Amino acid sequence: MKAAVFVEPGRIELEERPIPDIGPLDALVRITTTTICGTDVHILKGEYPVRSGLVVGHEPVGVIEKLGAVVQGYEEGQRVIAGAITPSGHSYASLAGCNAQCGAGTRHGFKPMGGWRLGNTIDGCQAEYVRVPDAMANLEPVPDALTDEQVLMCPDILSTGFAGAESGRIRIGDTVAVFAQGPIGLCATAGARLRGASTIIGVDGLPDRLAMARRLGANHVIDFHQVDPVDEILRITDGRGVDVAIEALGTPQTFEACLRVLRPGGVLSSLGVYSSDLRLPLGPFAAGLGDHTIVTSLCPGGKERMRRLMHVIAAGRLDLGPMVTHRFKLDDIRAAYDLFAHQRDGVLKVALTP
Amino acid sequence: MKAAVFVEPGRIELEERPIPDIGPLDALVRITTTTICGTDVHILKGEYPVRSGLVVGHEPVGVIEKLGAVVQGYEEGQRVIAGAITPSGHSYASLAGCNAQCGAGTRHGFKPMGGWRLGNTIDGCQAEYVRVPDAMANLEPVPDALTDEQVLMCPDILSTGFAGAESGRIRIGDTVAVFAQGPIGLCATAGARLRGASTIIGVDGLPDRLAMARRLGANHVIDFHQVDPVDEILRITDGRGVDVAIEALGTPQTFEACLRVLRPGGVLSSLGVYSSDLRLPLGPFAAGLGDHTIVTSLCPGGKERMRRLMHVIAAGRLDLGPMVTHRFKLDDIRAAYDLFAHQRDGVLKVALTP
Amino acid sequence: MKAAVFVEPGRIELEERPIPDIGPLDALVRITTTTICGTDVHILKGEYPVRSGLVVGHEPVGVIEKLGAVVQGYEEGQRVIAGAITPSGHSYASLAGCNAQCGAGTRHGFKPMGGWRLGNTIDGCQAEYVRVPDAMANLEPVPDALTDEQVLMCPDILSTGFAGAESGRIRIGDTVAVFAQGPIGLCATAGARLRGASTIIGVDGLPDRLAMARRLGANHVIDFHQVDPVDEILRITDGRGVDVAIEALGTPQTFEACLRVLRPGGVLSSLGVYSSDLRLPLGPFAAGLGDHTIVTSLCPGGKERMRRLMHVIAAGRLDLGPMVTHRFKLDDIRAAYDLFAHQRDGVLKVALTP
Amino acid sequence: MKAAVFVEPGRIELEERPIPDIGPLDALVRITTTTICGTDVHILKGEYPVRSGLVVGHEPVGVIEKLGAVVQGYEEGQRVIAGAITPSGHSYASLAGCNAQCGAGTRHGFKPMGGWRLGNTIDGCQAEYVRVPDAMANLEPVPDALTDEQVLMCPDILSTGFAGAESGRIRIGDTVAVFAQGPIGLCATAGARLRGASTIIGVDGLPDRLAMARRLGANHVIDFHQVDPVDEILRITDGRGVDVAIEALGTPQTFEACLRVLRPGGVLSSLGVYSSDLRLPLGPFAAGLGDHTIVTSLCPGGKERMRRLMHVIAAGRLDLGPMVTHRFKLDDIRAAYDLFAHQRDGVLKVALTP
Repeated sequence: MKAAVFVEPGRIELEERPIPDIGPLDALVRITTTTICGTDVHILKGEYPVRSGLVVGHEPVGVIEKLGAVVQGYEEGQRVIAGAITPSGHSYASLAGCNAQCGAGTRHGFKPMGGWRLGNTIDGCQAEYVRVPDAMANLEPVPDALTDEQVLMCPDILSTGFAGAESGRIRIGDTVAVFAQGPIGLCATAGARLRGASTIIGVDGLPDRLAMARRLGANHVIDFHQVDPVDEILRITDGRGVDVAIEALGTPQTFEACLRVLRPGGVLSSLGVYSSDLRLPLGPFAAGLGDHTIVTSLCPGGKERMRRLMHVIAAGRLDLGPMVTHRFKLDDIRAAYDLFAHQRDGVLKVALTP
Repeated sequence: MKAAVFVEPGRIELEERPIPDIGPLDALVRITTTTICGTDVHILKGEYPVRSGLVVGHEPVGVIEKLGAVVQGYEEGQRVIAGAITPSGHSYASLAGCNAQCGAGTRHGFKPMGGWRLGNTIDGCQAEYVRVPDAMANLEPVPDALTDEQVLMCPDILSTGFAGAESGRIRIGDTVAVFAQGPIGLCATAGARLRGASTIIGVDGLPDRLAMARRLGANHVIDFHQVDPVDEILRITDGRGVDVAIEALGTPQTFEACLRVLRPGGVLSSLGVYSSDLRLPLGPFAAGLGDHTIVTSLCPGGKERMRRLMHVIAAGRLDLGPMVTHRFKLDDIRAAYDLFAHQRDGVLKVALTP
Repeated sequence: MKAAVFVEPGRIELEERPIPDIGPLDALVRITTTTICGTDVHILKGEYPVRSGLVVGHEPVGVIEKLGAVVQGYEEGQRVIAGAITPSGHSYASLAGCNAQCGAGTRHGFKPMGGWRLGNTIDGCQAEYVRVPDAMANLEPVPDALTDEQVLMCPDILSTGFAGAESGRIRIGDTVAVFAQGPIGLCATAGARLRGASTIIGVDGLPDRLAMARRLGANHVIDFHQVDPVDEILRITDGRGVDVAIEALGTPQTFEACLRVLRPGGVLSSLGVYSSDLRLPLGPFAAGLGDHTIVTSLCPGGKERMRRLMHVIAAGRLDLGPMVTHRFKLDDIRAAYDLFAHQRDGVLKVALTP
Repeated sequence: MKAAVFVEPGRIELEERPIPDIGPLDALVRITTTTICGTDVHILKGEYPVRSGLVVGHEPVGVIEKLGAVVQGYEEGQRVIAGAITPSGHSYASLAGCNAQCGAGTRHGFKPMGGWRLGNTIDGCQAEYVRVPDAMANLEPVPDALTDEQVLMCPDILSTGFAGAESGRIRIGDTVAVFAQGPIGLCATAGARLRGASTIIGVDGLPDRLAMARRLGANHVIDFHQVDPVDEILRITDGRGVDVAIEALGTPQTFEACLRVLRPGGVLSSLGVYSSDLRLPLGPFAAGLGDHTIVTSLCPGGKERMRRLMHVIAAGRLDLGPMVTHRFKLDDIRAAYDLFAHQRDGVLKVALTP
């Protein structure tokens, strides 16, 4: 089969690989649509380390080709997705509700980021086929009424973006700021709307993204090239600050900005992947006196979550279709990476098909 | 009346002051016992700014001398405590359950640390009398069976320490580390036991405090002069880390140490008052991928909480008596500050009486 | 002033009354718009007991005419609402977050339904003026951009309906059934949508109400005259049942129906006011083995909540305007009660103006 | 092997059976100690239906004899327990945190009581060997320092009893009533203490059990033969009622009594197994206006919970040893049932060994 392989920093190449063998708890899924994540770009650039030779990609939409000997409850030929995070279901972490830190097989049952296996610690899905581990905990049938592209965000960015709204504990009528309106930030914006926020403020530097933010639920948008977002958010909120600030970029600057716009007792929900130390500046938060909460969320996975996310889309409550801005064949994956990594032509997400 | 007044950094002096006037929502309380807090020492040293001339102290036990015209439900002569935090009950912050950030009278109803008024923004209780604002939300009668000293920790450090256990969301059987076993850390240790933690690890550098930690619930203690606490906690937990880490000192080093001993998905409950920026070192937390939570808690107040804390003591479930190591007359408050600030003679808490 | 007074079962009469005196913590509000609640009809019929001579009504929109001596943070002339529930803010119940059971002035600080004072234990707002107690905890300014009618549901039915969604702990993508689409049920339907439910099933027997349910968020509606709602909900959910069932009528039959459509581990959020014993039929719930939860919610009040509810409307996320189907002058209040009590002419809510 | 088999109502007989075969996800455990549960008595009496021929028992302590082909992370010879509830980990219910309703293999992934398999829908552990399904989610090694008897309550009654305290959302300093001090009620009493309740009131009719209740944490006990528990609880609480009432018997009378002693806004945590409809008497709860919550809990299982429960015991925070009042050989199981079913000789729990 064809597969996109990380060779070395700067090089992800399409290679010929054998179709994966599967174990008794696994499923072999023939990929019909997948996409590229910002994290894949970090991998490409060598900023997030993976082993050379790894097949990348963690957002699978496809068809069950073969089921492991122990797997029950599915049929070959079913159209399915699996999350970017594929928890075992039986580790201490999974059983404690912390699927993304699933440490099945490790000494203590917790492993940092252990739930993220596809395209990280095992071969991923930018390929013709992928082995999905612990299939019974992870495969979720796609409702017939939905196209591949409609559910393409569910495995990762929609799940992550919604986690921002959820771990922020948004209440009906709350005011929420979302820093960065890339794919995950846009999904966080949509999630904040779905949890009942009244005022949602989207921050980004690209007009296309700000327009999409409005479409998905922001009622204020801030172009950080034009105004300072902290000042502007305080202006919009009349100096009060926001109840919840969601970080969806992964820089120390946006992390700090989130703290600076939080009201006392507010929640910073951090979705970004940082590549340097963070600073908690002296002020109410760092003084430890502000009753603030900071929560970091790695993408939640598991079929139960995938089911709910697809239901939101099937019910017509959310349309992420417009986020698929470009389409490529797997053969042209280098061009897809090139476009996506450089954020050219207003790209938000690309769809990759065999 | 006599009152301990902050004059300038380095000087808290006993001065003669008029007995406070009270407004319609206030109560005048004659202090029968009070104490000195670590925060008062920060004030003394000029590390925490208050206005010159302020009467300090925020841990009142006393008797109602006079009630404001509007105050109902109390009688003069009743023995009462009030929390260090005296929320209004009617601000947006209070109504949102965030009493310590109560911003009654401010534009948005939230004010950073706004609930902390006694000995901070209004005259405090290291004096013969104190005006307690919003008396109906704050005065709580002391059960007859309890002495002043038995409830002396309730207004501040017990409430704060318990908040560490509560905001850490300790589950039955969890493993908890508490960094520093000063008065607040000891109360956090006691709180962790009261929430059902199985393994509680207390860290400090003073043998007396470690002994007290054992007495209040720690089943492991670490003297940081002898071993590195991070290494030792990882050793005790066989490399797993703790479910909840409580910071009760207020230094960037202990804050970082908490992060280093947390298992994936764990909670850092921060009680310390920091006087410099904090750093989140790159690693699972700072990378944003560890599903970690950091919560800061300012002391929760309000009579409903004071009631519950005193009930725990009255029920015999907690005995903080041994924490009162020294007793002074208000006239000797300088000696009391001197002893307490220098942590001499195994001092934990002092009792001050008129 | 003119005021609608409960005389005896069957008689609510417009009488001439003195304008209320106010105490130091109160505000006098000149009513500009108010409405009639289903509970008022229970009072009229003698099904809910109040004292003869009571001015009824608990949904005030008006203008501050006068402020009590102690009240700060408001100005005479401000347009405001107050909740149907007017908590003190300082009772044990309020401080425990249980405003509707506020027992200020009682022995233990909890009083069943104690937060509901207007038109229940003190004179209400179907009058030219109303005394709002504990004004600082309860008065919330109306944003200029909103009309009286736009915020008319906030004091009671919107707050109650949203409580159904909130106490049901709806997750994104959940399936929710709402039994009865009267005013509160419609608000619960809107609340379920605002919390991110994917499938919302509205049940009622009136086509107009079912049409309104669709408009406010239901994607399935069931006319109980045509099909059995329990059967139909199980059919729609393919036998799975719902995650959350909301009871918004107040009959033992709908209460039981909610239990019959709940999946194992689901939540029944009960908003109705019942007038007879309820039965938990033997089955997973009554056997005690289903991990079910039943929550009852009296309308939550307090200005912090009123603020958030109005923000949702001001942000354009919810339009309850169409629910005001009829308008009356206070002078014609008998006609208004007559129409509303008999649910004639498709009435949902009436607006009453002086 | 020898196994206790349900033959027909009134008859549980020791029979000779083949040692169970195991599938790839299972483990074969050689039982070293087990016990009889109140539910087994219901089965014996025909009050809870199971198929004729079923091996009963759901509280296994033993040694791994053999591991299924797919099972990793364990070794033969390890001493282990498994919960009475053996969730799959991968059903929708398990992934939603609702292990006791696990519906692995069913159409919707939720099945009423589906997690309870041992001695209910598959052969149980009152036998020489038991097949434990989904071993990786359920087997938990026993710490070396603990004897079989010390952990014998963990699989069921300790887990269930603690669930009462947990789902009751007990806060530090709360007042809790526990109706019935049989094995589960005693564990609920211990759980209430471990969550920080200040006042715990135990109700029963047997002096031995009331004495044990005091030992495990009750500071008041009520013998219902001598006083009416509702009256007495209201007297003890000075008319206030309790914050949390735990039902641990399973009769409509105790269920109602719980409602009658709850303060407004309180929680009824129901652990009992009922065999008839329940009634919610008109009053604050049934009227739907009391902000009450009722939660039912089936025993929570899964190795992560078993681990925490054993840690509490290993840490010396709980000693259930005295609850094992009688010991029998498996050969004498009829005598054990006879004693236990008739609650003779002060029996609380029996230990059964091969």
